[in-house]
Amino acid sequence: MKKNFVILYLLLFVVFGAFAQQKPKYVFFMIGDGMGLNQINLTEVFLAAQEDRNTVFPLVFSTFPYATFATSYSLSHGVTDSAAGGTALAVGKKTKNGVLGMDSATTTAYKSIAFAAKEAGLKVGVTTSVSIDHATPASFYAHQPNRSRYYEIGQDLIKSNFDFFAGSGFLSPDKDSEKKEAPSLFPQFEKAGYTLAYGLDDYNSAKQSADKMILMNVKGSDKSSLKFAIDQEEGDLNLAQITDAAIESLTKNNNNGFFLMVEGGKIDWSSHANDATTTIREVLDFNESVKRAYAFYEKHPEETLIVITADHETGGIAVGNGGSRLNTKLLANQRVSQGTLSKLLSDLRASKKEVDWDEVKGMLTENVGLFADVTVNEDEEKALHDIYKKSFVQHEMETAKSLYANDDKLASEAIKILNKKGSVSWASGGHSAAYIPIFAIGAGAEEFTHKMENTDIPKKVAEAAGWDF
Amino acid sequence: MKKNFVILYLLLFVVFGAFAQQKPKYVFFMIGDGMGLNQINLTEVFLAAQEDRNTVFPLVFSTFPYATFATSYSLSHGVTDSAAGGTALAVGKKTKNGVLGMDSATTTAYKSIAFAAKEAGLKVGVTTSVSIDHATPASFYAHQPNRSRYYEIGQDLIKSNFDFFAGSGFLSPDKDSEKKEAPSLFPQFEKAGYTLAYGLDDYNSAKQSADKMILMNVKGSDKSSLKFAIDQEEGDLNLAQITDAAIESLTKNNNNGFFLMVEGGKIDWSSHANDATTTIREVLDFNESVKRAYAFYEKHPEETLIVITADHETGGIAVGNGGSRLNTKLLANQRVSQGTLSKLLSDLRASKKEVDWDEVKGMLTENVGLFADVTVNEDEEKALHDIYKKSFVQHEMETAKSLYANDDKLASEAIKILNKKGSVSWASGGHSAAYIPIFAIGAGAEEFTHKMENTDIPKKVAEAAGWDF
Repeated sequence: MKKNFVILYLLLFVVFGAFAQQKPKYVFFMIGDGMGLNQINLTEVFLAAQEDRNTVFPLVFSTFPYATFATSYSLSHGVTDSAAGGTALAVGKKTKNGVLGMDSATTTAYKSIAFAAKEAGLKVGVTTSVSIDHATPASFYAHQPNRSRYYEIGQDLIKSNFDFFAGSGFLSPDKDSEKKEAPSLFPQFEKAGYTLAYGLDDYNSAKQSADKMILMNVKGSDKSSLKFAIDQEEGDLNLAQITDAAIESLTKNNNNGFFLMVEGGKIDWSSHANDATTTIREVLDFNESVKRAYAFYEKHPEETLIVITADHETGGIAVGNGGSRLNTKLLANQRVSQGTLSKLLSDLRASKKEVDWDEVKGMLTENVGLFADVTVNEDEEKALHDIYKKSFVQHEMETAKSLYANDDKLASEAIKILNKKGSVSWASGGHSAAYIPIFAIGAGAEEFTHKMENTDIPKKVAEAAGWDF
Repeated sequence: MKKNFVILYLLLFVVFGAFAQQKPKYVFFMIGDGMGLNQINLTEVFLAAQEDRNTVFPLVFSTFPYATFATSYSLSHGVTDSAAGGTALAVGKKTKNGVLGMDSATTTAYKSIAFAAKEAGLKVGVTTSVSIDHATPASFYAHQPNRSRYYEIGQDLIKSNFDFFAGSGFLSPDKDSEKKEAPSLFPQFEKAGYTLAYGLDDYNSAKQSADKMILMNVKGSDKSSLKFAIDQEEGDLNLAQITDAAIESLTKNNNNGFFLMVEGGKIDWSSHANDATTTIREVLDFNESVKRAYAFYEKHPEETLIVITADHETGGIAVGNGGSRLNTKLLANQRVSQGTLSKLLSDLRASKKEVDWDEVKGMLTENVGLFADVTVNEDEEKALHDIYKKSFVQHEMETAKSLYANDDKLASEAIKILNKKGSVSWASGGHSAAYIPIFAIGAGAEEFTHKMENTDIPKKVAEAAGWDF
């Protein structure tokens, strides 16, 4: 009798145990800012096209066992901005555009999933390829009525007491939101126990002794963002290195797990500029970070959850602009971002009194492939030449404004031609209302099987992890 | 002892039984031709906007418990056509654009999932809102090297011996693909045992005695397609009625289940014409058919599988064209399809020697809302007036060609203005390479959790159902 009951219980234990939910102890919450489904699809198509293959080469995250999508509208607008979009992903509630981690009346602070993880005893990291006080990362630790209150966002960082921050730097470390001089944030960070590291070498020297840490780019570099992946050179800080550093820091002397947010922040920037090649390189750069998370998952498959999503789509990009044959391979002719091309052109213009058309054409060939691999028809050449005449001969500067770049009109026209030849079309220089993608793997990933609201994403993560959220 | 073992076995039976895979006996395979993720999103946004709500009102299928997406490229092109796209969904293999149910060398016929279901003893239905011999429905029953071999496709229908067909009609019932006179298909259908029903009344009279059936639109109506939903009037045959008739026919004296393909075929057509309102109404019309399938599912939840997908996206549509505020509510001002507006305009032009501008404006107000709810700026009015002058005063006819409609240029310009004001943008009049959506509910739906190839979709259905495929 007794023996049989033991067998019975053992069997039931095995049977039910197999279906019991394993809670994630390590959570990667990775956001491609502006990374819609079409940005991902374009990248997959482009990779295959480089090898003349009419197929797609998947990214590490597009092979995850769960893939679905979510709405992105905010409480105030059909098209969200990164503040309301980031807030939805961070706190699980919609708010109005521009607001960070608060209700739309900006009277109540919302608790983000990062705080929920912290309360549950996990270490928390917030990282990005743009500035640490930018809307998406700030959504996870700040509560501000306006995303542009960069100084105050920096002060909220201290209050969060999170363990690891990384990004390019801080936009307004010594002027508050009313543009008044204010005590520098950096000594305040240090006083609060943060070790400040400028660049990877600095990080490596400091990491042994550091408790909490803020990793920024080397002093003197652009504080607003890391370089675009397409423009990066050996030695430049990149998002994959930041991800590695975050994992290393959050696992040091810690058996309680971590919550790590990683933002690929400049997919949005290049999409605002309607610059397809730079966007593809940013998606691939983000994918490199996901590879780091995935390598960690492979070591701890039962205890790790990776969720990949986006705050919104940017640009209304479409792959295919009329014909059935895609020519995305041509996009590889672009060697620098639109912003860098603008700088090259403006340096050339400043370098001598008169720059002849052939020299400009040469620059467009070298950097965008125009007049070589990318054929330029008469109308297109005329459009380029007209701009050249105005800006290089008559010296009237013209810029094509996009949200994050003030680009030379010749550069944007050249890239517009390349995009068109490369089968890519853009609806606008703003965000769109498109569904945002979700990819998930690991413990709790099975929650991501259906279309949902963006606000459901952190709720499902918190529920899977058993955090009070 | 014995009693304990009985308890043990009973418990294990209950535990394992709960997880055993129930095979679907009734399969709905529903395809929105050209229905990309953005077409669905736009429809959801539009529905909410009608009630001044800044949210989305889901469709019946967008609430399904499984939602993911798939690639759509064909073997020959990055952007598929409906033949290769339909074939991928029907046979689970990629082929080249233009080919139906065969390999790209057009030497080998592929077996579609409909044949697999038939072999497994189920009844099979193939239905559409366009002609029965069009690429998508034909992919399920025909094997032809070219999608335009309509007569030969009709002959393949007979060979299929499937149980129920429905759509607008047949494009070339008495001329073969070499344009030569040929014996009419209709007597051949009847000889093969098909009852031919023209319209719903005819169907209702014939259904009791009929075995196999082909339901077409009433004689004298357009054989190429049902009317656009936006243009339909009381009494016009629609896709929901076809779906009801299919379910009724396939369940009559049949306990072996069925496989029913339903195509919403004209989402593609209105998207080719870049006509957003008509597209929304087509998606809603398709959704009405899904409601019929869903009502059946509710009666047989354990035995029914509904899969919703698309063959490709059409038009590269984007929701949001710059601003954060969406004005999709304005799209409701459009009362007729672009094709019908073209006809109204051309009838007006033919009705008298000179039509004055105010009368034309009145027509645009009445049918598209321009100059009333939809404000028209000076440049836009000038563009419209220029076309009016050419076509109404100088009587030079101008048409804006799209794949399935030869539209009056004034009509297409008016709808272009409405789309722009209504926050919608289009990349082109062709297909795009966007991922196709998948939604699933019921037995086997849990297979649809991750990004896949379009060819995986029928494979997963056949696997869930246990068919030899």
